Order: sequence, then structure tokens, then C-alpha cells
Amino acid sequence: MRAVDLIVKKRDGGALSREEIEFLIDGYVRGQVPDYQLSSLAMAVFFRGMSFEETGFLTRAMIASGDSIDLSSVPGPLVDKHSTGGVGDKVSLVLAPLAAACGCVVPMMSGRALGHTGGTLDKLESIPGYRTDLGVERFREVLRSCGFAMTGQSERIVPADRLLYALRDVTGTVESIPLITASIMSKKFAEGAQALVFDVKCGSGAFMKSREQARALAVSLARTGASLGRQVRAVITDMDQPLGRMVGNFLEVRECVEILQGRGPEDLRQLTLRLTAHMLVLGGLAPDISGAEALCAQRLRDGSAWRSFLDNVKAQGGRTEALLDPDQGPRAPRTLALRAGASGFLVRLEAYRFGLASGLLGASRSRKEDPVWPDVGIEILKVAGDRVREGEELCLLHGRDPQRLEEARSLLEAAVTVAGQAPPPRQLVLEEIDADALGKD
Amino acid sequence: MRAVDLIVKKRDGGALSREEIEFLIDGYVRGQVPDYQLSSLAMAVFFRGMSFEETGFLTRAMIASGDSIDLSSVPGPLVDKHSTGGVGDKVSLVLAPLAAACGCVVPMMSGRALGHTGGTLDKLESIPGYRTDLGVERFREVLRSCGFAMTGQSERIVPADRLLYALRDVTGTVESIPLITASIMSKKFAEGAQALVFDVKCGSGAFMKSREQARALAVSLARTGASLGRQVRAVITDMDQPLGRMVGNFLEVRECVEILQGRGPEDLRQLTLRLTAHMLVLGGLAPDISGAEALCAQRLRDGSAWRSFLDNVKAQGGRTEALLDPDQGPRAPRTLALRAGASGFLVRLEAYRFGLASGLLGASRSRKEDPVWPDVGIEILKVAGDRVREGEELCLLHGRDPQRLEEARSLLEAAVTVAGQAPPPRQLVLEEIDADALGKD
Repeated sequence: MRAVDLIVKKRDGGALSREEIEFLIDGYVRGQVPDYQLSSLAMAVFFRGMSFEETGFLTRAMIASGDSIDLSSVPGPLVDKHSTGGVGDKVSLVLAPLAAACGCVVPMMSGRALGHTGGTLDKLESIPGYRTDLGVERFREVLRSCGFAMTGQSERIVPADRLLYALRDVTGTVESIPLITASIMSKKFAEGAQALVFDVKCGSGAFMKSREQARALAVSLARTGASLGRQVRAVITDMDQPLGRMVGNFLEVRECVEILQGRGPEDLRQLTLRLTAHMLVLGGLAPDISGAEALCAQRLRDGSAWRSFLDNVKAQGGRTEALLDPDQGPRAPRTLALRAGASGFLVRLEAYRFGLASGLLGASRSRKEDPVWPDVGIEILKVAGDRVREGEELCLLHGRDPQRLEEARSLLEAAVTVAGQAPPPRQLVLEEIDADALGKD
Repeated sequence: MRAVDLIVKKRDGGALSREEIEFLIDGYVRGQVPDYQLSSLAMAVFFRGMSFEETGFLTRAMIASGDSIDLSSVPGPLVDKHSTGGVGDKVSLVLAPLAAACGCVVPMMSGRALGHTGGTLDKLESIPGYRTDLGVERFREVLRSCGFAMTGQSERIVPADRLLYALRDVTGTVESIPLITASIMSKKFAEGAQALVFDVKCGSGAFMKSREQARALAVSLARTGASLGRQVRAVITDMDQPLGRMVGNFLEVRECVEILQGRGPEDLRQLTLRLTAHMLVLGGLAPDISGAEALCAQRLRDGSAWRSFLDNVKAQGGRTEALLDPDQGPRAPRTLALRAGASGFLVRLEAYRFGLASGLLGASRSRKEDPVWPDVGIEILKVAGDRVREGEELCLLHGRDPQRLEEARSLLEAAVTVAGQAPPPRQLVLEEIDADALGKD
């Protein structure tokens, strides 16, 4: 087998076999297939696509490039959730303890904030003492004792993805649905999940800006999962505006605590319940979505999800004082208000600019090596649909550096729209994709 | 400027500017733009194409990557011809002395036999003593004294093409019309030609198998030449069957001697006259094609082209004895006949298999490092349209190794078709492309 022949085959619209894809990925990781062949193949895939079966082969080959975490010793249905990333997306911090409180086991390996998007690890680390560098053994122990554990990705999991992603990043081949699918899916299955719920974000603050792109990815995730014989649901959700009322690290943790205590913003609560409910159905813990949502609501109400979260924070080294009394947690030294420029209805808070502004304040990185601050971010005081008066406070920016605060405020000025008429109500869950219901490839 | 942004621009259908293409090619040659970015760009170009203007920018950037040969001290119109390669294509060996005898100066840098195609350098080197490794100084001297000189390509000419071609060869990006155009054109103009005639071969024995592909390349060559302000003609010619009656190295030299002496096969004579005539028109040595063809015919008849060839052979170290009495030249120790399997009309000699068979006998290389023999090849005794009887000799194979001779004969058995009806007459010149007549891009 020669890599060049396989590149030509894909270039000319052919489908690669399982053996051919294994040859390419295995060869690439071993250094026998060079970067310049993989990048030209990736560009051919960008143009020609891959069938769901091919994408499944690719996913499998990528999983085989490294270690897989064996969680067979952990009792309970292993179900995880993955979000494609957004602004104010702190769902994982509520969903994991909630799903665990309902009987799921959630082996969650997460990423860091980059660009305009936040990262679960950075949010967790804003809790004083919280460790996200669990080794595999400790990860298993926390999983067994808490029903969920949250850690960074191990270097030994799917090395093919790290290599391929770095290559795609510099060769114009990031935006390929099958390559994105295999990248996401390989990591999640290698990390020990048996079933997966994907939250495919769509809109200004998401990687997928349009509904068509988001749907293509959601269908690809669901169908590729099915081709691998796995239970997968993909939910397309709105990320045109931030989720909840907090954007930042500890600010988002505070909001999660509110939800876990039965308070907090309704949009975040609703979406979290919906996604968790899908996990319960996949895990066989509820017969259908409405039953699962009722179970989730009960576990929030009775405080078991909140206790599950506190148990996990203790198990992972965090000090619960900052959660029990969030005023004791990190707090930025300066605030600056964004005020309404006119009276009327607030119709839109553009998520992308909110993400950029939060990043500018220090809640995310523009380069991987930048530091991230736990205390900075944006508190959203008014949301779309609210009536506002000129000069009224819309947001409170929390920051460290006065100049950065001013710059972030300028960004937000362009991100908010006030108009004479109220906007239509926000639809948070746009579509739910179930491969079984889609029919065949 | 970042290479990845330019890859994305091309990938999404944009046109690259002159500066952007210079940045990529210059950076590539300097090692600042890595292989994996150029290969992904090449694949994007494969799918998106390039305008003739972009192809011109690419050609210019490639020329600028190395030395150009300064022939301003050589008086006379500098016109060259390039063929995309075929089987039995020995046109250059007659065309160059003929054009020189008509007043052109022909600075010909040629390539070697590879795969099923022959190479002008290997044919010339089958003349005992003939040197094709002239340095630039000697190349200029021979040009000045003979009106034409024939040598191998200097390493210092268009290094970008050597790098890019080697990369394209292993990344599935060879078959891209703009990349092929820039590769061919950059070398020819860097070698000092002012105007160019391209012989774009089409059919079984050619790189371009279909008329559409050949036309696309011919138009691209003509239009890109025009975008560079150069005089270019592209002629699409039939390469579905071998040209002339000899395939090999010295066998082809013998056939060229026949043509230069006013004998030889009509197809070779006609095509050579036509291509040379285009050169004369481009060089301003004849007002139109028919006038130019008449001048060529006269120079063949009066022996001046033949004398010009002998002068060049002497100047380049060759022993003219082998030309004046070809029986003194190289001769393979063994021959084997291919005989007709049935009676009827010979309707086709498939060029590709003839090229493979000749290569198998040792007239070409399957890998660059293989040796090439001067004496081996195929003598075609009957051509398409001839009536043949069962058992009659169709070809005579000249070889060194009995087993190879048998293998080559088997190949040829599948390459010849005998049928009850005569085929339509062969049309050698399929189309002549003049950018000026095509209108704008």
C-alpha cells in the first residue's frame, strides 16, 4: 500500500477502506507517512468528504493510535457529554454531578479556554485547590466514589489527534466535518465513555456559525457513532447569545452553584436538564426524555446533585468554602459597567464579542501559553427581551487592568443591540438528532 | 502574510495575488514554508484551479527561484519547442537543426526517458560520444556556432520546480493543469527562450489521455504565456499510436537521419514540419504557417538541416560516423519478431503499450537510477491502415535479454489490433491553439 495512491483515491472521490485508513493513521503516528502526505489527504477530504462508515474507520484508527482508558471496573452506565464550545457554556459543571446523582457514571475529560471560548478545566481550576491533573488511577477512584470525575486529557490518549489537529491548524484543513467528527469522537470513546451526548453549538459564539454547518456536524456525529455501534445523541443548541448570565471562570462556577441550589437563570437550567436527560436515556436510567427530565429536576430539587458536586470538589482537592460562600472565592479588583446607549428592548447580546471581551479581560487565552485568571469576566445584568432605559447598566465587567476593561467595554458596546420592539423568544434547543431515526447512510 | 491564510483563500475559491504567490514559492524554496503547507495548497489548487493570471504569477515566481540563462549575446530569434512526451516522439532531433537552418536559435534543454516515454537526452547520447552535459558557457558557444544546442537541465534553473514536482509526485497533486503549466513554462523561459511552441500530446501514449484534458492544458499554456507577455503556440497532436516507425534510442536517431536526408516516415516528417513552421512564425522568419512550411521543406530538401545536425553533433562531441553510416552505430545483439495473429487490416498500435515494451527492453527507466541502453527498442514494420497476412512480421523487437524480449512481445501482442476493415486515416495535428485568437481570460 502506498500513501500517494490512497490520496489519489480520495481526491478522485473514492471511499477508503478500513485497512487503508489504518495504514495512513498508524503510519502517520509512527512517522512512516509524512506530514505532507497527511495534509494533502486532509485537503482532499475537505473537498470530497468521507462517508459515515469511513469516518467511523478514521475514528477507530485514531483511538488505536494510543491508550484507551479501561473503566470496566467502574460499575454503572458510562455516559459523557461533549460540547463543541461556546460562550458562558458552563453546562458540564452542573450536568456531571446531576447525571451522577441520577445514576450515570460520567468520565469527563475536558479542554481549556482558547480564543473566544471558555474551557471547563479553567472554570474548575478557579475553585481554590481544585486539581484537574488526575492520573488514570485517581480518575478511576474519583469516578467510583463520586460518580463523575473531571480531568485534563492524557497525553497518551489519541496521539493521532494531537498530531493531526496541529497539522490541520496550519494547512487550512480544520473545517472538515468528517475530520472534526473523528477528532471529537475518538477522544471521547478512548476516554472510556460507552454512550455520548453531543451539544453542537450554533451561532455567533460557536465554531459552527450556521444552522446548516451545525446540522451537518450533528448528523455526522450521530451517524458515525451508529456506524461504530455506539449510542450517540446530538443536540443542536443556540450559541448566538451567551448561555446564562455569567461569562468567565469563577463567575461561571458561582452561577453553577446557583443552579445546583435550585436558583440561577432559566436558560442554563433548561438546557442542562435537557442534555442530562439525554444521557439518562442513553444510560438506560429513564424510559424517555420527559421521564428523564423529571428525574433530573427532582435530583436538583432534593439537593443530591449539589451534594454530588461538593463531594467531587473535595475529592479533587478543591476548597468548598468558596462554593458554600462564593463571596470568599476569587473576585477581580475592578469592575466597569456597560450601560444602555438608548431606551427600548435589548434584542441581542452577540456571543462572539462577549467571548472575545471575556478573553481580553483574561478569562481565556489568545495563545496556548497565555495565563488565565479565575476572577475576571462579564456579569450579564440584562438579557435579550428585557426592557432597558438609556444609561441603565446592562453588564458588569470584572477585570484586573483598567485599560483592558475599557477595551472590553468597547467590544461589548458593539455586541449589544437595543431596538424599539422586543425580539422573539429565544429557542435554546434547535434540533435533536438520533441516528436511529435518520435511516441509513 | 501567513501561508495558512493563503491556503484557506485558495481552498475557498479565491485568487492569489502576485505577492502572495511569490511569498509562498520564495518561502518554500528558502525552507520557510514547509512541505506540508505546499502540499495542502497544491491539493486546493487541484480542486479550485488557478486563473491564467495566477498561473502566470506562479510561473514567474518559479523562474525567480533560480538562475535564468542569459542568451542576449546570441543573435537571432530564440524559439524553443516543448513536447509533453510520448512514444517514438523524436521530433526535437529534426526540428532543432531544421529551425536553425531556417534562422531560428533553439536553446533546447531536455529531459530523460522515464516510464513509457522516451527522452531526448537518452536518444542523443545513443550517438557515440555525444555530450548532453554542456555547461552554460559551452551551451552559448554551441548555440552561437550551430544555431541550436541540446543539453540537460541545469540544477540551478528553477529549483522551485524540482522541489515542487518531487512533492506533487508523492501527494497526489501531479494532475493539475495550472501546476503542470507553471512547471513546463518556468523551465522553458528560464532556459532563455523568448517564444515557445508546445506539442501537447493526446491519447494512449500521452500524459493527457483525453482530448478535453489535452485541450485544457494547451489553452492554459497559450493563455498563461500571453499573460506573461510571451509568444506561445500550443499544438495538440495525436499520441494514441507511436510517432514514426522507430521506438528506442539509436533506432530513433536513425529514423531522424532518414528524415533529415529527405526520406523516412511521412507522419514524422509532417508533424516536424508543422511544429517547426510555428517556430518560424513566432520568430518572425516567415509571414504565415504555409510560407513557413514551404521554407522548412526547402531546408530539408537542400540538405542544410542535415548539415546543421552534423555540425551540432560534432560540436557536442558526437562521432558522425554512426550517422553517416548508421550500421556502424549501436545495434542490439538480439531481435524477435511480432507477427500478425490474423489476416486483415492493422487498425491500431496502442502507444502506451509500445512505450512500456520499449522501456522493458531497456530504452527507458522505471526508476530514475535505472540504466538505459542505446541499442534496444522496437522497429515498426506495419502501421495502422496496412493490410497484413496472418504470420506476417508487424514489428521487430531489438533487445539484449531473451526473456525481456519475450515479455515485450507479449505486451505488444495486446497492443496491436487487426480487423476486417481499414481504420479511418490518422489525423496527426488535432488542434492549434493561439492565445490571441482565444480572446480574454
